[in-house]
Amino acid sequence: MSDDRDLHLALIRQVEQALEASFRSSAIPAHLAEAMRYSLLAGGKRLRPVLNLASALACAESEPGFGEEDRQTLIRALLPFASALEMIHTYSLIHDDLPAMDNDDLRRGRPSCHKAFDEATAILAGDALLTDAFGFMARTPLPAPRVLEALALAADAAGAAGMAGGQMLDLDGEGHALSEAEMTELDAKKTGALLRLACESGAVLAGADGAHRQALRRYGEELGIAFQITDDILDVTGDAATLGKNVGQDAQQAKATWPALLGLDEARSRARFHSNAAAESLNEDLFGNSPHAALLRRLARDLSDRTF
Amino acid sequence: MSDDRDLHLALIRQVEQALEASFRSSAIPAHLAEAMRYSLLAGGKRLRPVLNLASALACAESEPGFGEEDRQTLIRALLPFASALEMIHTYSLIHDDLPAMDNDDLRRGRPSCHKAFDEATAILAGDALLTDAFGFMARTPLPAPRVLEALALAADAAGAAGMAGGQMLDLDGEGHALSEAEMTELDAKKTGALLRLACESGAVLAGADGAHRQALRRYGEELGIAFQITDDILDVTGDAATLGKNVGQDAQQAKATWPALLGLDEARSRARFHSNAAAESLNEDLFGNSPHAALLRRLARDLSDRTF
Repeated sequence: MSDDRDLHLALIRQVEQALEASFRSSAIPAHLAEAMRYSLLAGGKRLRPVLNLASALACAESEPGFGEEDRQTLIRALLPFASALEMIHTYSLIHDDLPAMDNDDLRRGRPSCHKAFDEATAILAGDALLTDAFGFMARTPLPAPRVLEALALAADAAGAAGMAGGQMLDLDGEGHALSEAEMTELDAKKTGALLRLACESGAVLAGADGAHRQALRRYGEELGIAFQITDDILDVTGDAATLGKNVGQDAQQAKATWPALLGLDEARSRARFHSNAAAESLNEDLFGNSPHAALLRRLARDLSDRTF
Repeated sequence: MSDDRDLHLALIRQVEQALEASFRSSAIPAHLAEAMRYSLLAGGKRLRPVLNLASALACAESEPGFGEEDRQTLIRALLPFASALEMIHTYSLIHDDLPAMDNDDLRRGRPSCHKAFDEATAILAGDALLTDAFGFMARTPLPAPRVLEALALAADAAGAAGMAGGQMLDLDGEGHALSEAEMTELDAKKTGALLRLACESGAVLAGADGAHRQALRRYGEELGIAFQITDDILDVTGDAATLGKNVGQDAQQAKATWPALLGLDEARSRARFHSNAAAESLNEDLFGNSPHAALLRRLARDLSDRTF
């Protein structure tokens, strides 16, 4: 148990280092670089990069003869791609917080980007993080066909049919009662797509076979559902200091949420169901005793535990 | 002469068809797809896709035995990438027009996206066009290492050190007197980088050698300078009906412009100088009698002719 927590912390540390090293180029206007780094380096759990790295490692570790040196080599190769997923996530937070969108002035315990800077700078910082994320991905030093495939999946997950589409559904849905089917679609696009992509692209980049890829895709999908239900529950039961963002925002903005639709108990039970389904999709027949598969299983189970 | 005008129209037609076919998926929320297509299909000269296609074709045509069938095959393969450049350009127009940015309510002769829809939808339509552009690029059916290299260059050209950075410099510079060096840097980032990228990436995608690539990079760079000087001149001397956008905006927003810095005559003479330099960089030693190299030379010369 302590083992996979150490692995988790090691991955977060490597992602932080990679992010810290980014956007220092003198070719970037200083004002813009400052806003990008302000939002990117504001902490956070780095969940998407961790999922990406752990998914690739879980695939690689299930092959015989994969040693510690191979592991460090693979992590180093994956870091541009994994870091790019955090850039995409950060861009989406910056734009979602804008006055024309969710109008949120607190993020990760600090003023959101448009409050710390201004609206134009926040729009551009988001645009630049999104754009440069694809440049980071394209420079991932792994076989080009794998990198291209993973990058195309990332664009799908973040684009019109994915995260951006989900935010559109979210805005369009404000003040309306959404059905369970509508909320499922909204969540699948708004947060689910990128979480699933983080896992599936890890398998693609590791050159995994179809069974491993499918298992990680399933893991990411179930995790995404559990994640969004958990997030909705914590918006009701959590406090701003712990979460680093305003709570009660969903009710204030008349957004449909899982606790409102199902009641708190049923929402908790659903979160647990999907967390378990995620964990169980990484079974030992496929992943042997891969320590990063164990980490992924624990991450899924910890998620719904937070709601109790 | 009529020959290369026909080639030009044929390229524009193929780009229009590719753009028209995009974003019809039912997986995209209808409201978002409508806003994306509203801005993407509003006409325009499709300059960046045309430069991209013509640059690749100019390289391919300078090799012996490249026939009409090869040409059509190459155009079809290039269209996802070329169309993506128009998506990136369109995203930048949508975001630049936002109230927090240049606050422009007319674009290509119609209400700009945030006027036709609303601000949140315009932000998301821009985000989605930018994101999905990388998905289109990644699916370009040419050798993966070439596609990855061209895509990485596109991210650089559009990102923090390129177009997004240029828009930041532009906003930061409003109301200040900029030096010639500052204006040169601003233009190189804001419009120059993507125009140069359109040309250079065409060479990369065609698998061109270093000399052809360098010549097209030079062409794109000189064209970009001529383009921005011309644009500034037309903002003073043009009329809204012809240009499809408001004129006199630069003066109104107290933006530094080339005619203001140099006077109209000197600005015209500079535009002509850089147009000629662009045309001359595609010399016949390298490009033989490639009809698409001839098209590129004419495009460059026509640009500065518009200012007289």
